[in-house]
Amino acid sequence: MAVTTGISSSVESVYAEVQQFYARHMHLLDAGDGEGWALTFTEDGSFAPPSLPEPVVGRDALAEGVNKAAAALTEAGEVHRHLLSMVAVEHGADGELSVRSYAQIIATPRGGSPRLHLMCVCDDVLVRVDGELKVRERRVTRDDRQP
Amino acid sequence: MAVTTGISSSVESVYAEVQQFYARHMHLLDAGDGEGWALTFTEDGSFAPPSLPEPVVGRDALAEGVNKAAAALTEAGEVHRHLLSMVAVEHGADGELSVRSYAQIIATPRGGSPRLHLMCVCDDVLVRVDGELKVRERRVTRDDRQP
Amino acid sequence: MAVTTGISSSVESVYAEVQQFYARHMHLLDAGDGEGWALTFTEDGSFAPPSLPEPVVGRDALAEGVNKAAAALTEAGEVHRHLLSMVAVEHGADGELSVRSYAQIIATPRGGSPRLHLMCVCDDVLVRVDGELKVRERRVTRDDRQP
Repeated sequence: MAVTTGISSSVESVYAEVQQFYARHMHLLDAGDGEGWALTFTEDGSFAPPSLPEPVVGRDALAEGVNKAAAALTEAGEVHRHLLSMVAVEHGADGELSVRSYAQIIATPRGGSPRLHLMCVCDDVLVRVDGELKVRERRVTRDDRQP
Repeated sequence: MAVTTGISSSVESVYAEVQQFYARHMHLLDAGDGEGWALTFTEDGSFAPPSLPEPVVGRDALAEGVNKAAAALTEAGEVHRHLLSMVAVEHGADGELSVRSYAQIIATPRGGSPRLHLMCVCDDVLVRVDGELKVRERRVTRDDRQP
Repeated sequence: MAVTTGISSSVESVYAEVQQFYARHMHLLDAGDGEGWALTFTEDGSFAPPSLPEPVVGRDALAEGVNKAAAALTEAGEVHRHLLSMVAVEHGADGELSVRSYAQIIATPRGGSPRLHLMCVCDDVLVRVDGELKVRERRVTRDDRQP
């Protein structure tokens, strides 16, 4: 896999690596694979979603949140997809990446029409652990709750 | 064009090439250019859409399907756009690529508002023919028909 | 930033650079930063939007248009996001790039649900100025006004 072959040689190749990282990351999330998804965060990774007053911290808590949400969606007969786009990568000190992107969440009920459920902005800090990109920090804001 | 300049030198450059391939592939599809679109499949390429019991196989059949659909859309005064996102590329043996992506289909009636028509998952096998990427096999599943 | 590090070494690395360029470009637009957005055009850059009979030409006019639109959206309590996808890059003479993409415009009212406001096709000519990509010419067509 791309992310394990070592240090990428250019800013442009990192960009492709980030896109590929997000694709797998969201496939895991939307498949309801909480443990697999949590592994794409650092061990102490944090996720501040708009729906909670405090960030979710650590892989166990991250996995649990996804598994619970997936069970609720299955119960409701609905599929959710997370589509990141307009990914802007800033290179910081120590190889840290600050990434801003847009996130569409598409919901489709079984036998029904898809709808645009939420439009969000996602601000991530990505770092490398043993050569692989991981989310260390994520903050998400919803467009319907802009100040 | 990128795809004809020879063997790409890294996993990351192949990623950009795949994205560019899909952009042109979908522009041809949405323009109703059945023959042009069919050329982005291998000669024996197959496409298993959710709407049919059997895959469509071979360029003639692929082109015919697109041309018929385009005529029906023109008749109905509607434009469809196929937007692939969250593209995850796995490198297999012999340079074969397994690609999973999300596909939004957006429909816009003349003089009306666009709507999210279908949300799908697209699983492709891409291969190189004379240096150019081609779809050898495509399977599409609709989110409204998830088991 | 990637775009200032010099001439990119391959077609594939230019592709990532173009995507990154568009991400920042749309973040500036959607943040209502007219002046920042105008700087991503050439000094004589032109933008032919579907809503106007004549193109908007030059950075002052481009910035003014965005600032006015942003003020109107703030007044209306609505956030707009411009999402480009299916980006196809053609390399022309003198390093000029012709780029066709799809543009979804997503509108979210404060406290309400997001909606797909417009679906468009965007045709750009990008050029390099002091190593950085800039839009020299943009033409946008709306899917609801296809001939």
